[in-house]
Amino acid sequence: MSNNKQSLIKALNKTLGTSRVLSTVEECYAYSQDASNTREITQIPDAVVFVATANEVLEVVKFARKYKTPIICRGAGTNTVGACRVEHGGIILNFSRMNKILEINKENMTAKVQPGVILGDLQSKVEQLGLFYPPDPSNLKVSTVGGSIAQASGGAKTFKYGSTKNYVIDLEIVTADGRIMRTGSDTVKNATGYDLTSLFVGSEGTLGIITQATLKLIPKPESRKVLMAYFDTVEGAVEAVNLIVSQRIFPATIDFMDANAIQTVEKFYPAGLLTDKAATLLVEIDGFEVSMNYQQAIVEEIFKRCNAANIRVSHNEEEYERIWSARRASMGACALLKPNVTTDDVIVPRENLPALVKGIRQICEKHGLTACLVGHVGDGSVHPQIPIDYNDEDEYRRYKLAKSEIYELTATLNGLLSGEHGIGAEKRPFISKVIGGTALDFMRKIKKSLDPDNILNPYKIF
Amino acid sequence: MSNNKQSLIKALNKTLGTSRVLSTVEECYAYSQDASNTREITQIPDAVVFVATANEVLEVVKFARKYKTPIICRGAGTNTVGACRVEHGGIILNFSRMNKILEINKENMTAKVQPGVILGDLQSKVEQLGLFYPPDPSNLKVSTVGGSIAQASGGAKTFKYGSTKNYVIDLEIVTADGRIMRTGSDTVKNATGYDLTSLFVGSEGTLGIITQATLKLIPKPESRKVLMAYFDTVEGAVEAVNLIVSQRIFPATIDFMDANAIQTVEKFYPAGLLTDKAATLLVEIDGFEVSMNYQQAIVEEIFKRCNAANIRVSHNEEEYERIWSARRASMGACALLKPNVTTDDVIVPRENLPALVKGIRQICEKHGLTACLVGHVGDGSVHPQIPIDYNDEDEYRRYKLAKSEIYELTATLNGLLSGEHGIGAEKRPFISKVIGGTALDFMRKIKKSLDPDNILNPYKIF
Repeated sequence: MSNNKQSLIKALNKTLGTSRVLSTVEECYAYSQDASNTREITQIPDAVVFVATANEVLEVVKFARKYKTPIICRGAGTNTVGACRVEHGGIILNFSRMNKILEINKENMTAKVQPGVILGDLQSKVEQLGLFYPPDPSNLKVSTVGGSIAQASGGAKTFKYGSTKNYVIDLEIVTADGRIMRTGSDTVKNATGYDLTSLFVGSEGTLGIITQATLKLIPKPESRKVLMAYFDTVEGAVEAVNLIVSQRIFPATIDFMDANAIQTVEKFYPAGLLTDKAATLLVEIDGFEVSMNYQQAIVEEIFKRCNAANIRVSHNEEEYERIWSARRASMGACALLKPNVTTDDVIVPRENLPALVKGIRQICEKHGLTACLVGHVGDGSVHPQIPIDYNDEDEYRRYKLAKSEIYELTATLNGLLSGEHGIGAEKRPFISKVIGGTALDFMRKIKKSLDPDNILNPYKIF
Repeated sequence: MSNNKQSLIKALNKTLGTSRVLSTVEECYAYSQDASNTREITQIPDAVVFVATANEVLEVVKFARKYKTPIICRGAGTNTVGACRVEHGGIILNFSRMNKILEINKENMTAKVQPGVILGDLQSKVEQLGLFYPPDPSNLKVSTVGGSIAQASGGAKTFKYGSTKNYVIDLEIVTADGRIMRTGSDTVKNATGYDLTSLFVGSEGTLGIITQATLKLIPKPESRKVLMAYFDTVEGAVEAVNLIVSQRIFPATIDFMDANAIQTVEKFYPAGLLTDKAATLLVEIDGFEVSMNYQQAIVEEIFKRCNAANIRVSHNEEEYERIWSARRASMGACALLKPNVTTDDVIVPRENLPALVKGIRQICEKHGLTACLVGHVGDGSVHPQIPIDYNDEDEYRRYKLAKSEIYELTATLNGLLSGEHGIGAEKRPFISKVIGGTALDFMRKIKKSLDPDNILNPYKIF
């Protein structure tokens, strides 16, 4: 161990107490990676510290500056893009002790939380009060609010309700130069200076360390139903979506699964899915109980007009869960095909979704890979789930090639490399395919002006 | 005229043609001020140029850099905070020739517009297609989309639908260093790098020049109704709002007028308003036709429970307009009390709204001023409309004193100096009351890194 590192560990131990600092290789090993599940070589962090207050974070930042050591924030480590991957050593900030819901204010319709709060816990607390925090990434039972803010997480309901970006109104940030800053306020609207809050949402821990967040809440919709149906073509499914919206129905969710996803789920979790169909749509409608039959009738009528097969509707929460279970089983089913399963997140304007789906399938077939495509049609968002064997050198090579071609295709379809997962380390080599040189330059200028010593999650995103 | 200025005008004339450059004092005089309607001394701009393309804007930026002259963007000049006030000479960019709606894409639910498009024109075009662009500042019949983005405008419907911030997905920006940049993309979700788009929304022309915007649209709600009722106390009105939301009703708008506003409107536009009441609430409900009676019944029942008087409900668009006309008449009625009328924009968490309203009234009474208070209860937003005579030295002094005390009060109530108008030159001296030193420092760092020569609308906001 270098003298520098020894001094750092000593300082951390002295400040936080040895029980809150991990520093042996054995202890730190598990923190070198996140759910990005890469084969790339990573480094083991110098230390993992369990911070409990913003002031403790501030102390750690001071040490990081003194010893020129990177700081990487880590919630539950569920991000799939290597956003908390360790590449240059450094200190992992573990927020599991900063996991308190500090306030849910019914009158202001806001919640104040520490970054380590589990997203699903927050949602159920909020819903018990008749309020609603819509962002619902599929890992919400384990992922943290802090991580969801750092990665600008979305979820199934972004079509109607927007993503995390639309719900953060204030952040407490520990800055790279060792100060504590508030980016916004408790007010739900803000036209007072630059929108620093939005700058930090999705900045993947590279601009500042989130130690508290204030979130906007909305009234919880009274009722919900999901409709599922099968289509002969992806184009047919997208056409149905266009017709639904043109009838002024604003579904909370419009999700889809392609043929591979349907077949893979049916193979491992047989539930009578129609495996000869090109796509299935899941349309969740919500709102006042009194409007549900009306909305349902319109969606059903459009499904029929678009020759949809096997239309199902949930009439209670049990049926709702059962219908959704097919879509939710996709990642798990894919994982049974090969030792490793990967997911991704590309997004295009909705009119280009059929071309994106077709193109991804062609690319994967060309490279001898199976891709189960699921995603959020409403937003034009696709999550290709590709099962592979990391130990198969040739398959891994083909997988990497396919990924690169998928990003190229997304760029030609006027899309982006991420709608709701972030860029991290994993997609960093490709960001210039979709973000212009001047915009990247501006991002670098901002990074440089707020973190001149490049201490905060260095070299992530770009 | 200085040699420098002469050379600048000559260069502008040569590039844009003399018909698109104004440079005499007589021509430029009207562009020295905006709707902030100040008595403060302003400067006359060196030139006003009518740009037609982003490339022309680029050329103007190059001249501005060469001659070290500020550039101030101007839409319709309707902002009330001096955001396009001329304080250091410079070039006014007039966007009235860049007023095209370039595309309304039904399938992607997006609109691409030039900055000079009138907001109301965009809204009606979009609504003809069954789509909806919610931000509706009260000046939307004359104000431009570019201005509304620069100032992060809100409007009556922000409670349910959010402000301009929630609808801009991409901007074309001409940068201070003379490049054309795209900040986002045509996709409705984006987790690809820093949120540059949100950084430019509300930056009041200080970070870059907006030459095109892509806006997100949503399905237009099928039906709407407004309910109006009177309350004996402001607290009673806010209590009614809390009860409505706790019944999971999510009104598009929850507006209010205080006693002074009611009395002033009734004085000049008699319509039978109850002038002995402390406040009136206007609650707009919207959604599916089939849900309207249900929503109306709940709101009416809560109004009654809160002892509201004279409950009115619109049963058609004519009644809808008639009920809203009282609230809309407030500014015009105030203008009849004195030669000048001013408006403002402060915001607090909703639980502090009664204290803010009471405090503003006390401050104004203490200084011998009449304040008509209107605003958006749902958001905790108050617009104090104060009629004064600018030629009355003493009244102006008292007015300035009252403003400063209102900002002080807002700060103590955990609020902000603007929820939807911006800061501009007018509130610049007060921003540090509500934004901390570190956050202001970060804003300055960002300004400095993106506009190092301080060419773009210099010294505005902070």
